[in-house]
Amino acid sequence: MKLASLPDGSNRDGRLVIVTDDLTTCRPIEGLSMIAMLDAAMPPDRVAARAGPPQPFDPASALAPLPRAAQFLDGSAYVNHVDLVRRARGAEMPARFWTDPLMYQGASQFLAPHAPITGDPAWGLDLEAEIAVITADVPQGVTPDDGAAAIRLVMLLNDISLRHLIPDELSKGFGFVQSKPLSACSPVAVTPDALPGWDGRKLHGALKVDLGGQPFGRADAGRDMTFDFGQLVAHAAHTRPLAAGTVIGSGTVSNRGGDGSGDPVARGGCGYSCIAEQRMVETIRDGAPATPFLHPGDRIRIWMEDATGQSIFGAIEQTVAAWP
Amino acid sequence: MKLASLPDGSNRDGRLVIVTDDLTTCRPIEGLSMIAMLDAAMPPDRVAARAGPPQPFDPASALAPLPRAAQFLDGSAYVNHVDLVRRARGAEMPARFWTDPLMYQGASQFLAPHAPITGDPAWGLDLEAEIAVITADVPQGVTPDDGAAAIRLVMLLNDISLRHLIPDELSKGFGFVQSKPLSACSPVAVTPDALPGWDGRKLHGALKVDLGGQPFGRADAGRDMTFDFGQLVAHAAHTRPLAAGTVIGSGTVSNRGGDGSGDPVARGGCGYSCIAEQRMVETIRDGAPATPFLHPGDRIRIWMEDATGQSIFGAIEQTVAAWP
Repeated sequence: MKLASLPDGSNRDGRLVIVTDDLTTCRPIEGLSMIAMLDAAMPPDRVAARAGPPQPFDPASALAPLPRAAQFLDGSAYVNHVDLVRRARGAEMPARFWTDPLMYQGASQFLAPHAPITGDPAWGLDLEAEIAVITADVPQGVTPDDGAAAIRLVMLLNDISLRHLIPDELSKGFGFVQSKPLSACSPVAVTPDALPGWDGRKLHGALKVDLGGQPFGRADAGRDMTFDFGQLVAHAAHTRPLAAGTVIGSGTVSNRGGDGSGDPVARGGCGYSCIAEQRMVETIRDGAPATPFLHPGDRIRIWMEDATGQSIFGAIEQTVAAWP
Repeated sequence: MKLASLPDGSNRDGRLVIVTDDLTTCRPIEGLSMIAMLDAAMPPDRVAARAGPPQPFDPASALAPLPRAAQFLDGSAYVNHVDLVRRARGAEMPARFWTDPLMYQGASQFLAPHAPITGDPAWGLDLEAEIAVITADVPQGVTPDDGAAAIRLVMLLNDISLRHLIPDELSKGFGFVQSKPLSACSPVAVTPDALPGWDGRKLHGALKVDLGGQPFGRADAGRDMTFDFGQLVAHAAHTRPLAAGTVIGSGTVSNRGGDGSGDPVARGGCGYSCIAEQRMVETIRDGAPATPFLHPGDRIRIWMEDATGQSIFGAIEQTVAAWP
């Protein structure tokens, strides 16, 4: 089942709609939001039984599936990405990063899929294309197996990052606040049973990223994912319960190339899911980055397709706005 | 106006109630939660007009005022506390910590005031008594003045911390996840106009902490607060908007003693708002900490009183439960 949240008057959680597989039509569920569905652990057939008449579905008008999540925790499961960051600045990555997931607590408030990116270009605006899951209630201390079983929905995420603010903020020791503003979500979240490429722990298939209409990233989300979503949920829940409607992100999807760094799409590689990674590869290969971060007017598109070329989640389509 | 959230069937946001000043009686607002009140920017008189008949108020049955906040960002505004942490381990504190607020993104899911603390004693369980504010909608890039004006409610917070997990987790560079589980809130949140000791930016008065029924902390929340709530809101909103129902915490309340460290309550000092601080003072003075962290059965009480001795917010009263 494909689900989305549309604006619903003063209810900021939005109104739940069931979206057809081709994303053209939806059926609203009167008086129900996605978070209320998750709170009540309502099974899909009970949701479907309440669906109203079909109406056109416009992804551009959708909210994030969960405009307000119970929590947001973002992993860094593609350790290749972390390794590249370190190598670009000549630092060794601790070996434990291959066995102990990196994760940060993110803002639980999410942007709509077509929301503008409002930041000062001096902050070093970047995208990070990710896979994310939405959980049911998860008890404290859950195992990875039970963590995987608690996954109710899967979606895409753009974890907007302010690269020039990160080094200074992380040096203070308390993680990201100003350097990680709100993330945007795909218009549609999909239940695991209806999701092509989902193996219960990982999502396989190319995560497509276009920048200014040009192919930028085609990394396979099922490849090189060191920690699967069961492990990420368990890491997040080690010392706390997660309420229904918690979002767990994968971190920037990243595939290892021949020498670990990967080629741009234009040179036949699978490209990158963030600009920083392309800049790191440029730094490692050429001594300096060449690709600039985002500027006002720049357009981002993030989506995935099934075997027939049909968009699975709809697209995150954001344009950088002038700021301030 | 004093407000609380009581359990309301399957609605996890709870039902809003107006609580009398003496905390003995409340009037429920049919069909309204605190988050819905904040979403709609509903003025107090409109809330009062919808209040039902009075009923007894039992703080032990209250939820957190906002069981699910839009976001939670916790400052470290009492820089004395940070300075002591550093001194206890022989490290100098960067001078910028006096001008650039430390803040971390916390879990936006909150525990009820009487919820047990469920953690392994090996994790180094500690309390952190704090003041917190709940905001209206705050635009990105807000000034400290406008940030202060956006404060709608004030409450108390116990930011439970797992001391033995912190060094290892912070060394990974992404801030707190496992080492900062869910925080608990006071039963009641109070509007600024009805809050004794509130000066528009800070809350003055003794934040009382008892441990096992013995006085442990009596620090004045209005003293030694290097960054006021206007500055903390502005720091949180520098690169993002904050949705109505965002919680901003002060960090552990801490007063400087004669030599910066302060005496225990039993020796006539104002004591501490977390066990770690007492242990740091013991380390600085005696070379080693003597006070243990929390163990199953230990009881915490956190509250504030007005000039007449009346509890302002009700008390956070938590007992450490056996885990696992």
